[in-house]
Amino acid sequence: MIVVLRPNLPAEEVDKVVAEVAKMGYQPHPIRGAIQTVIAAIGDERVNPSLETLTAWPQVETVLRVQKRYKLVSKEGHPQPTVINVNGQQIGGGQPFCIMGGPCSVESEEQIMTTARAVKAAGATILRGGAFKPRTSPYEFQGLGETGLKLLAAARKEFGLAVITEVLAEKDVELVASYADILQIGARNAQNFALITAAAKTGKPILLKRGMSMRVEEWLLAAEYILSNGNPNVFLCERGIRTFETYTRNTLDLSAVAILKQETHLPVIIDPSQGCGRADLVIELCKAAAALNADGLLVEVHPNPAEAWSDGQQQVDFKAFAQLCRSLKPFIAAVGRPS
Amino acid sequence: MIVVLRPNLPAEEVDKVVAEVAKMGYQPHPIRGAIQTVIAAIGDERVNPSLETLTAWPQVETVLRVQKRYKLVSKEGHPQPTVINVNGQQIGGGQPFCIMGGPCSVESEEQIMTTARAVKAAGATILRGGAFKPRTSPYEFQGLGETGLKLLAAARKEFGLAVITEVLAEKDVELVASYADILQIGARNAQNFALITAAAKTGKPILLKRGMSMRVEEWLLAAEYILSNGNPNVFLCERGIRTFETYTRNTLDLSAVAILKQETHLPVIIDPSQGCGRADLVIELCKAAAALNADGLLVEVHPNPAEAWSDGQQQVDFKAFAQLCRSLKPFIAAVGRPS
Amino acid sequence: MIVVLRPNLPAEEVDKVVAEVAKMGYQPHPIRGAIQTVIAAIGDERVNPSLETLTAWPQVETVLRVQKRYKLVSKEGHPQPTVINVNGQQIGGGQPFCIMGGPCSVESEEQIMTTARAVKAAGATILRGGAFKPRTSPYEFQGLGETGLKLLAAARKEFGLAVITEVLAEKDVELVASYADILQIGARNAQNFALITAAAKTGKPILLKRGMSMRVEEWLLAAEYILSNGNPNVFLCERGIRTFETYTRNTLDLSAVAILKQETHLPVIIDPSQGCGRADLVIELCKAAAALNADGLLVEVHPNPAEAWSDGQQQVDFKAFAQLCRSLKPFIAAVGRPS
Amino acid sequence: MIVVLRPNLPAEEVDKVVAEVAKMGYQPHPIRGAIQTVIAAIGDERVNPSLETLTAWPQVETVLRVQKRYKLVSKEGHPQPTVINVNGQQIGGGQPFCIMGGPCSVESEEQIMTTARAVKAAGATILRGGAFKPRTSPYEFQGLGETGLKLLAAARKEFGLAVITEVLAEKDVELVASYADILQIGARNAQNFALITAAAKTGKPILLKRGMSMRVEEWLLAAEYILSNGNPNVFLCERGIRTFETYTRNTLDLSAVAILKQETHLPVIIDPSQGCGRADLVIELCKAAAALNADGLLVEVHPNPAEAWSDGQQQVDFKAFAQLCRSLKPFIAAVGRPS
Repeated sequence: MIVVLRPNLPAEEVDKVVAEVAKMGYQPHPIRGAIQTVIAAIGDERVNPSLETLTAWPQVETVLRVQKRYKLVSKEGHPQPTVINVNGQQIGGGQPFCIMGGPCSVESEEQIMTTARAVKAAGATILRGGAFKPRTSPYEFQGLGETGLKLLAAARKEFGLAVITEVLAEKDVELVASYADILQIGARNAQNFALITAAAKTGKPILLKRGMSMRVEEWLLAAEYILSNGNPNVFLCERGIRTFETYTRNTLDLSAVAILKQETHLPVIIDPSQGCGRADLVIELCKAAAALNADGLLVEVHPNPAEAWSDGQQQVDFKAFAQLCRSLKPFIAAVGRPS
Repeated sequence: MIVVLRPNLPAEEVDKVVAEVAKMGYQPHPIRGAIQTVIAAIGDERVNPSLETLTAWPQVETVLRVQKRYKLVSKEGHPQPTVINVNGQQIGGGQPFCIMGGPCSVESEEQIMTTARAVKAAGATILRGGAFKPRTSPYEFQGLGETGLKLLAAARKEFGLAVITEVLAEKDVELVASYADILQIGARNAQNFALITAAAKTGKPILLKRGMSMRVEEWLLAAEYILSNGNPNVFLCERGIRTFETYTRNTLDLSAVAILKQETHLPVIIDPSQGCGRADLVIELCKAAAALNADGLLVEVHPNPAEAWSDGQQQVDFKAFAQLCRSLKPFIAAVGRPS
Repeated sequence: MIVVLRPNLPAEEVDKVVAEVAKMGYQPHPIRGAIQTVIAAIGDERVNPSLETLTAWPQVETVLRVQKRYKLVSKEGHPQPTVINVNGQQIGGGQPFCIMGGPCSVESEEQIMTTARAVKAAGATILRGGAFKPRTSPYEFQGLGETGLKLLAAARKEFGLAVITEVLAEKDVELVASYADILQIGARNAQNFALITAAAKTGKPILLKRGMSMRVEEWLLAAEYILSNGNPNVFLCERGIRTFETYTRNTLDLSAVAILKQETHLPVIIDPSQGCGRADLVIELCKAAAALNADGLLVEVHPNPAEAWSDGQQQVDFKAFAQLCRSLKPFIAAVGRPS
Repeated sequence: MIVVLRPNLPAEEVDKVVAEVAKMGYQPHPIRGAIQTVIAAIGDERVNPSLETLTAWPQVETVLRVQKRYKLVSKEGHPQPTVINVNGQQIGGGQPFCIMGGPCSVESEEQIMTTARAVKAAGATILRGGAFKPRTSPYEFQGLGETGLKLLAAARKEFGLAVITEVLAEKDVELVASYADILQIGARNAQNFALITAAAKTGKPILLKRGMSMRVEEWLLAAEYILSNGNPNVFLCERGIRTFETYTRNTLDLSAVAILKQETHLPVIIDPSQGCGRADLVIELCKAAAALNADGLLVEVHPNPAEAWSDGQQQVDFKAFAQLCRSLKPFIAAVGRPS
């Protein structure tokens, strides 16, 4: 870390800070500059306490971090991309582009079965569907619960698709894991470390959505909680961040794909449905995701979006989804990936 | 709700939307305007499904909500301010301004006992201290757990202060509730509805922090989860929102106090420590909170902030805390509240 | 507009608001709802005064706009895409993808000449280069001024490239217009309506960057200032918005391309250099821009970025730029556009 | 500056960066750390070029600034607060709290005269009123121009109030300066350096509003443009920043008062009207501003807000303004300032 001292600080005051830096486990190197002194503090920033507490002292102007705070998710110690096996399907690295599709909420047997058939026909290999739904208001539909999980499992059996579904509560982790092939941690729980840790311990692959106002660094540290609990199979899913813009529900941060490809070996999935909240923009954003060499997509699909029990405005119908899958092929080919 | 149709829509297309609005349980009133038609949809927006799904139709430009989505937390049906009883102490309404102080994390018996003595002497009536800590990185100190809870309980016994502490996991709710007088739900869990509901069911007062990028409406709806689970005792705690500013850790949204006083009967607490992340600004922000007639404060206090095990940069020492409490008195008097 | 009244308002109070709505030039249609009354106010919202002022009345809860505020930039009255002629080169609509490249700042004859040669060889048809630079600090390099403009003109003559450069001051508009083929209005001046209007009146094509925290609606209204001053030739340039993320300088809002293609007939250009502030991400973001069917790119290119006089961290060198141009071809082909 | 190199970099690569740092005018001090090497670069960061361009090199992970970028506005070289003389009235430092009030736009002689009388009677000493209005849409009222300026001057003569009004265009600077006592630079022009510089050169006091998404550092640097052009009389006016919140038009960043009091000697003014966009919150926010020891207020006042030609929703009427001024007195007294 770098401890920046206030300008024109007397030498004995500098010495006090140097002594404190040493006391906190770092090797201090003071450097007298043109305007002020800085202390380079040598040591492992992940093991030693943070020197940021020193800004509580009047001598200290600011403290700057030097080292990355994550290690297991980082490419430095793991340069090869992680490939995750989901029921025999390989995702990540140079593996085929993976399309996950299905309704926001599981609503009925007919709805999930017709949707599963349609998304499979279009090219999806994984079925999404919410059985437990995190809803802003307590008066909104909260999902079918275990009934929804059973319907997802029936669709898996019928169509050979893997199943991804969200888990909202620690107490449901075992139950959801007994039905799902991938456990989804939603944006609202992206720093719910109790839930994340419980999900990690099932050993199932985890799809970790980015929180609404999460920096990439914080997102990678949340993934670090999963890896440090012994589960290396994490998908990072960008789903839009909260900004001031009102024409879209969220602002899909597509540059996050490029950043993540530099920072981490974990596969990256884009959710354009949540990302913009508008069905009419979803196809275009999927093309951009493919062009950025994302590893896959998570897309909301519904037989009749206007009558969906949740978030109909961002779900595409079967025809649009089939067109979407077709239209992606040249972009996937252009990045040199099998589709 | 108001369904805004696209300009120049043929009459038969308007009729289709009108029919769908009726099918979804609303009474439709189409009004032909200068440029486009709008449909006023009469009905209870909290009971009927949201018409926002209609934006999936090409005929529909946008859908506007009319009604507030919350009811139990709203002043409309409950004009009198809620006063919460915490171990005999009344908080909210015209009751005395309440100061909660203590360390970010409980670190040791000596630390918590000296701090409890100091904050009580300065004028605090509630002791804060984290036993379970939500940390961005898995490599940071995660709190003393039950040991920390026991130390808080010992300090309560010794000094007669009530205790507030955060609960992070559903599985710990019972345990934390057996030690704490107020359960704190942190910003990262502000939409962790499983945890919120579990905490609500203990019957203990809940202090619900605003999420980092939560709109006031969403915050009130999260509180609505608690009230609709039978627990009327909720403190709303503003602790800063995430913005682009870098001189502070968060941007404390003090206007939220004024908004909340208009929207809800629940008491409002300000946390300036998290709110700005800088000990040197805390006193000034506390004065502003008092001037806005907030119901109380949550302030981080540590015997030696530079050596704190977490967030030392935003904790004030005993001397500064005593000065803070003294300096508030004229502002509390100016709003006509007992201090 | 829709005037939403407070719940349970007595009829005579409703009548007062109805009368005021009529007085302000609208035809009022009150509709009594389940919880509250709304008044649909029929009239042209762009001609009549905004009813939003009515929220100053205690009877009024909120006022909702129905109509779009822009007209000349809108696709409604102008469904065909605008194609802009820049020195004989057609840009927009189905015309070839347009690449604009060059340094952040013009620094010397050698720098601009070598860069012009390199960007032309790589496939760019327009040369960018700043002669007047808006710098956050008064102590930073402010551009070469007219000397820089002359160097750009010399490069145009030598290499047959059109020239785009920023104008910062009303007093320089004529001067800059006498050298440039496209006038750039930068993000900091995106709502500097005096400058925008002066630039519009030159009749030159204008490239209007999105302001740092501008909503798409506001951006389109700024463009409306140009069209309503008689200049139809406006490029809209997305260059990243300000968010909380720190791994990038700005967050490039690529979804804006898809939104703009629905809202307006004006061509859309992406500036990935400002958009992320990191040379290492630029190529990937350009591919995404091409996949979204943007009409072109504005890319910063420098012979030796580490020694650039401004913003070297986001400029690519000649080799990277040539690779960038090559790598775009399959994406441009995939959207069915000539490259 | 601190140049952070990538982990495990070979010594000869470190040497290349060290050489480049020296070439760019800094004295390099490489320090080999536990994980990576950092180079402390000694030199005046305001004079030498920024080393941030070095992040264009693959050897460099990031570059951290150490020094503050502003100097004339900083308290370091000017510890005493600046007191600004406006027509004999002293503002800033320990001088009386200054209230500026008046309409958003000047609309008519009657409007401005009745308002001037009312704000003076309530306690204001400066009259505000817009003659040139920056409006998001070209179809909105743009102000009365010079007619408005003349009305302001007439009100000054009649009531002995000083006048503050906004200047929008370089070409109008002389004209506006010939009528106004304080020139206001609005949020949309907060980084319009051509306008700022032209205004500075008139020698009139300048009120510089914070831009909508401006960091405090950038705001101070914009003020530095004024001081470095020879004009020391700058008021910094916080008027809300753009966030995701929708219950208010902007989020008033009251913590900026406390930060500015630490960073700069310039006086700080709060504009709660723009800051929240809601008349019903203005009084409360004014109290908070007084409690934070701001130097004054800028408040929008209108005889009949519902019929205001601009922004009626955020203007208070005469009765509310008089109540506002009365209610501030105990808070002003509590900070020990004359009212």
